[in-house]
Amino acid sequence: MILSHLKRCGVLLLLLTAGIPASAQTNPYNRYVDPFIGSEGQGNVFVGPSRPYGMIKPGPDVNKASNSGYSPDLDIPLYGFSQTHVSGTGGGPKYGNILVMPFAGNFDRVKQESLRANEKAGVGYYSVQLKQYDINAEITSTNKVAFYRFGFKPGTRKAIKFDAGDFLGEKPVPDAREAQQFVGSEIEVVSGTEIRGYSRIRGGWNNGSAYTVYFYAITSKPFDSFSSYKADKLYPGVKLQADDGNKTGVLAYFDDTALQQVQVKIGISFISELKARQNIEEEAPHWSFEKVLADSRDSWEDLLKRVELDNSASAEQKTMFYTGLYHTMLMPVDRSGENPLWQSATPYYDDFYAIWDTFRSSNPLITLIDPAREAAIVNSLLNIYQHDGYMPDARSGNCNGRTQGGSNADVLIADAYVKKLKGINYSLGLEAMLKDATIPPGGNEEKEGRGGLTDYNSLGYVSNRFVRAGNRTVEYAYNDYCLAVVADGLNRKGEARRFFKQADNWKNLWRPVTDHGATGFIMPKDAAGHWIDSIICGESNGRITSIPYTPLAQDWPNCVCWWCGFFYEASSWEYSFYVPHNVAALIDACGGPDAFRQRLDTFFANGYYNVGNEPSFLSPNLYHWIGRPDLSSSRIKQIISVNYNSTRAGLPGNDDSGAMSSWLAFHMLGLYPNAGQSYYLINSPMVKQSVLHQTNGKDFKIIAKDLSDNNQFIQAAFLNGKPYSRSWIEHQDIAGGGELVLQMGPKQTGWGAAVTPPSMAGDH
Amino acid sequence: MILSHLKRCGVLLLLLTAGIPASAQTNPYNRYVDPFIGSEGQGNVFVGPSRPYGMIKPGPDVNKASNSGYSPDLDIPLYGFSQTHVSGTGGGPKYGNILVMPFAGNFDRVKQESLRANEKAGVGYYSVQLKQYDINAEITSTNKVAFYRFGFKPGTRKAIKFDAGDFLGEKPVPDAREAQQFVGSEIEVVSGTEIRGYSRIRGGWNNGSAYTVYFYAITSKPFDSFSSYKADKLYPGVKLQADDGNKTGVLAYFDDTALQQVQVKIGISFISELKARQNIEEEAPHWSFEKVLADSRDSWEDLLKRVELDNSASAEQKTMFYTGLYHTMLMPVDRSGENPLWQSATPYYDDFYAIWDTFRSSNPLITLIDPAREAAIVNSLLNIYQHDGYMPDARSGNCNGRTQGGSNADVLIADAYVKKLKGINYSLGLEAMLKDATIPPGGNEEKEGRGGLTDYNSLGYVSNRFVRAGNRTVEYAYNDYCLAVVADGLNRKGEARRFFKQADNWKNLWRPVTDHGATGFIMPKDAAGHWIDSIICGESNGRITSIPYTPLAQDWPNCVCWWCGFFYEASSWEYSFYVPHNVAALIDACGGPDAFRQRLDTFFANGYYNVGNEPSFLSPNLYHWIGRPDLSSSRIKQIISVNYNSTRAGLPGNDDSGAMSSWLAFHMLGLYPNAGQSYYLINSPMVKQSVLHQTNGKDFKIIAKDLSDNNQFIQAAFLNGKPYSRSWIEHQDIAGGGELVLQMGPKQTGWGAAVTPPSMAGDH
Repeated sequence: MILSHLKRCGVLLLLLTAGIPASAQTNPYNRYVDPFIGSEGQGNVFVGPSRPYGMIKPGPDVNKASNSGYSPDLDIPLYGFSQTHVSGTGGGPKYGNILVMPFAGNFDRVKQESLRANEKAGVGYYSVQLKQYDINAEITSTNKVAFYRFGFKPGTRKAIKFDAGDFLGEKPVPDAREAQQFVGSEIEVVSGTEIRGYSRIRGGWNNGSAYTVYFYAITSKPFDSFSSYKADKLYPGVKLQADDGNKTGVLAYFDDTALQQVQVKIGISFISELKARQNIEEEAPHWSFEKVLADSRDSWEDLLKRVELDNSASAEQKTMFYTGLYHTMLMPVDRSGENPLWQSATPYYDDFYAIWDTFRSSNPLITLIDPAREAAIVNSLLNIYQHDGYMPDARSGNCNGRTQGGSNADVLIADAYVKKLKGINYSLGLEAMLKDATIPPGGNEEKEGRGGLTDYNSLGYVSNRFVRAGNRTVEYAYNDYCLAVVADGLNRKGEARRFFKQADNWKNLWRPVTDHGATGFIMPKDAAGHWIDSIICGESNGRITSIPYTPLAQDWPNCVCWWCGFFYEASSWEYSFYVPHNVAALIDACGGPDAFRQRLDTFFANGYYNVGNEPSFLSPNLYHWIGRPDLSSSRIKQIISVNYNSTRAGLPGNDDSGAMSSWLAFHMLGLYPNAGQSYYLINSPMVKQSVLHQTNGKDFKIIAKDLSDNNQFIQAAFLNGKPYSRSWIEHQDIAGGGELVLQMGPKQTGWGAAVTPPSMAGDH
Repeated sequence: MILSHLKRCGVLLLLLTAGIPASAQTNPYNRYVDPFIGSEGQGNVFVGPSRPYGMIKPGPDVNKASNSGYSPDLDIPLYGFSQTHVSGTGGGPKYGNILVMPFAGNFDRVKQESLRANEKAGVGYYSVQLKQYDINAEITSTNKVAFYRFGFKPGTRKAIKFDAGDFLGEKPVPDAREAQQFVGSEIEVVSGTEIRGYSRIRGGWNNGSAYTVYFYAITSKPFDSFSSYKADKLYPGVKLQADDGNKTGVLAYFDDTALQQVQVKIGISFISELKARQNIEEEAPHWSFEKVLADSRDSWEDLLKRVELDNSASAEQKTMFYTGLYHTMLMPVDRSGENPLWQSATPYYDDFYAIWDTFRSSNPLITLIDPAREAAIVNSLLNIYQHDGYMPDARSGNCNGRTQGGSNADVLIADAYVKKLKGINYSLGLEAMLKDATIPPGGNEEKEGRGGLTDYNSLGYVSNRFVRAGNRTVEYAYNDYCLAVVADGLNRKGEARRFFKQADNWKNLWRPVTDHGATGFIMPKDAAGHWIDSIICGESNGRITSIPYTPLAQDWPNCVCWWCGFFYEASSWEYSFYVPHNVAALIDACGGPDAFRQRLDTFFANGYYNVGNEPSFLSPNLYHWIGRPDLSSSRIKQIISVNYNSTRAGLPGNDDSGAMSSWLAFHMLGLYPNAGQSYYLINSPMVKQSVLHQTNGKDFKIIAKDLSDNNQFIQAAFLNGKPYSRSWIEHQDIAGGGELVLQMGPKQTGWGAAVTPPSMAGDH
């Protein structure tokens, strides 16, 4: 099936991969990955090569204010390739450490930059033409080693800069929030082919403490001379620049004007320079760029091929889908063996950036494709809890922070538990969740745990004396439900009772106000229990300006800081739909099914729904709970058609470690998880057939029979041949293998109306 | 005066310094320092060489469970000299990193040890004979470089071990509390005379996160061969052992059997190995052991000579006094330029271990001798606040923690403020204090801030739902007073009012119970306001054992953990005297002056007073507030005569960074600070005359006229020639220079009765 499909799509494939070294015929899925999707607009994706969850992410740096280092604007010169990046993030940048830059011309200048041409990117590969120097740069990578191939035009001497001082997101303001800040760097020329050193940086989006990226670089040809530099001053022939708090680097010069190519391997480590060297020895002991690239492609292919789309899917659909899978598996990064903080046999992952973004669809997608990986990620979170005191909501640079709302690692524990992931100590998981739910992080609340917990646990909601009180309350309520589910399963009935009860806490901020025809919203309340009607928005000439607090009001970032509003990054219209554990009760609170449908319609029709952020990820599916999965499917199809495509601007918001991408991928299959719960909602698939080749050896096939532009509605469903009236499917039914056939037709016929998906499952 | 004195004491001096390289005649005070005082018994002092506040503290390691690494028990073999130690601490050990050990005999064994003989220690110097190998080892140091001189007997080949994996306080239990835990190490033979590497360790007493001690070692003679090792396996001739989570080291072999001496310089750094190398280049670029030793002695002499004791003081008195000054200036350590966490022009100090111990007398003593140093220390605390979020109560290994009671850095800010230390941003100081007082550290309360603050700020006391509720409440009340004083001074009247009021919070736990004739004690109370009469102390066969909670009850460590009692390391009898800002109100609460005197008498007579710990440091002085400074002086004289002397067991408890020592030194002068307040209590001095040579150029002389064994009572006082009836003296009166003459006589005559020292000074 795959081969015949490849034949059909041959023309397009050539377009996608033009100029990229040929992939083996054994890696057909690779060709549908286009790392540039999401590189324009708000996507902020990383475009360089990476292994799945790969520690090193070498790529082009064009804009220091860019989260990924990249800019699609070809009028902005590229100034080098750094070895560490994140993908899809917003806020202040992180990483961008250990910059390498081939150059020619002025050898005595530290600053080097060139306009680009002919950029190409594919799985495990990136290349670009540096017009200024007539140099072609190609990059591939192992897990911890970047492999560069610099192609030179003969005729001029060339050089390579190794910069241990550069990083993204620098600001001149000392200790500026979300800015990365320089701590130190060091560089040492070990031999004519070896340079080692490190970069030590703090801050960034998570305002983390200092992290150190060590490197060891080896060139395939000896350089003939060099200048080290410190604080932009050159020191010809000086091998060592010790760390005295200045930026350091080395310019390595090649005298042979006939030289056509120099390859460079850069191993990195968060442990030491020698460990970085050892990483090269273990992962790339040779000089074959092609072999590293082929291995990288194989490692991706092994994952991508686990979801096989029918050959009726268009090339664009496949490109969107497999790029979605690819984006989902860039982060968190596997840093096992690279934890500078403690020893453990447990895997170590970093760059949870952030779980608030990824718990909804990215982690569930990983669970489906690679359950052992998700178990390793969850175990890593528990290991962090054991050593740092709390699981992170976000973590980067070996440092927990920041927490945007709930303690959403709780959802990952529950999601793993209800989906029966093996190899996880769930008692320990419950302990970590109880820590979140009972021990306030106090002044550390930006870093981990639940801010405002003292209010929440005494008042039943977070009052307006804490920032982000609205989304904290609704997220804590769901986190409590997740905790209760695990406690219940572990026969900890007392805790289960308490937290199932607390899962209703969203009701404590539910105020019966009416806005645009909808009644009942999550609204701010003070600690004495009084509703807040207006919020202060400024002061001028002694007069206080306040704005009425309505369900559409947005106090941030104009009245108060970005993180200081009643809700984080969304309105009450959005967050008032966030009761993923008890949609039935939410529908009641909204006035019943008709009012709820009306409310959802208004939400989408009036543009209150924000496609580009995570709080409303589940919302298009809520029609399921009024027995109208067809309306969910229609919304989803509309959302995707308007907001997603296979162009570089094809993602509607920050990809957030693959959050946007995984949301898309799930919906293309016709499934969507309610993370923390054991089922997937069933929607109209966008492809006629998909097969999930599971790591337990069992295939699960989804067939959208007679799917066409005219046949977009599920008429009936059959699970393993038997009629299936539920509009959701349990994870175990997928894990057990089998076949879900959805008979598609031109109109909705009432399928999914008889029973609605679970609400407060597990609460007895 | 000094010279004539030296002549008189010549015999004893020779005894003290026998075998130690001769000190220049210009360093007469050096000779009164005996680093062995406090090395037996509970003192736990560090016996190796150190510069004042020196970062490197190389010394003998004999017992891995010892806080200082040292043991006086000569039957226990010495296993090496590590470069980092703390002095006087209790609980789980910290540091003991980068071990060096000269040896002979079995060259293929990593483990090397030898019995000791002929141990000597003086300012900047330590030496020992290693009997097993017939090697004499001598050590001196700069701030960041240890300088070793190993003397060999010709005849056998010798070797030196460099161990990057060793450390103190290791336990086989993973993640054991207060135990140091291995994270990683690395070693690299750079040349025949150079070895570099690091040791990365976490945990220890403060349960801190990982710290890394980098080193660079240079031998004065090339070694002829070497074996590196990893996890005790030898790798002959292998230069690199990268960090893969195992312990590493190098055995360097010297073939020349006629070799009589090898010197080794070991630079350390918390930044990098090259920085450690640079530290050697900057601080010890030569090979003169004598020069390093002489410089070290000069640096100490410059400090010691600032307090000049009269030549009538006995050699023992001088030894006790100057060793006291010496112990006070070992820690915190100056790590400016060695902070791996952030860049700052502000000095960086580490090993506040702990401020709970040192705020009472050590820091005030530093303020008197070296105000610029104390200002630097305070600025370092504020810098830590700015970057880590809170000032530490304790800090070690670049990590805040642990907090035993109050946020006592507040006292240091107030102490600096009222004593008008220059170069401190007191507005920033107030901000840091307000953080302590208003933002609960939540689950992080072991690390920093005020645990139980939610109770304290709502109930006015810490209830029994938090551990250490008793001492937390009384310490917070004093911290609040300190905050109020600074706020008041900075014209922040609102905050001043609030916190002067809160300074009364000790009264909220004051319960009118009677015990051994005294009425009124700090006692446990629950959050509903009910007194707690008994506490659970165990369960057996379903029966709960409880003990009545009395003022002498001690629930820790038998009923609950060491840190989990109502009071930390003391009884209610001790802590109920802790109202340093309002002794007048305390006297009222106790039933008036007579009852208070009776209570104090009972306290000392019945042995409820613990000389070996800090909570009661001020208590012997409390008679001042009932107009009987003579009784204070008598108590103090008695306490010292029984508990302090110049032997190795001459300190009554953990020296705690010089806490015990500075308490002694103050009392020998006849002064004692009430830290956080602007005055010193005046007591009978133990020496006839002392002169404080202040850094502002002004001398302050204290003369105890006619002091003798029979004349122990102050009859009258004269400040700068004028009669002085107060039993306390303001810091500014000392700082301004002058002379305090105390006329001594055989009986108390009522001096000090007319007015008592301040209570709630600053509260209007």
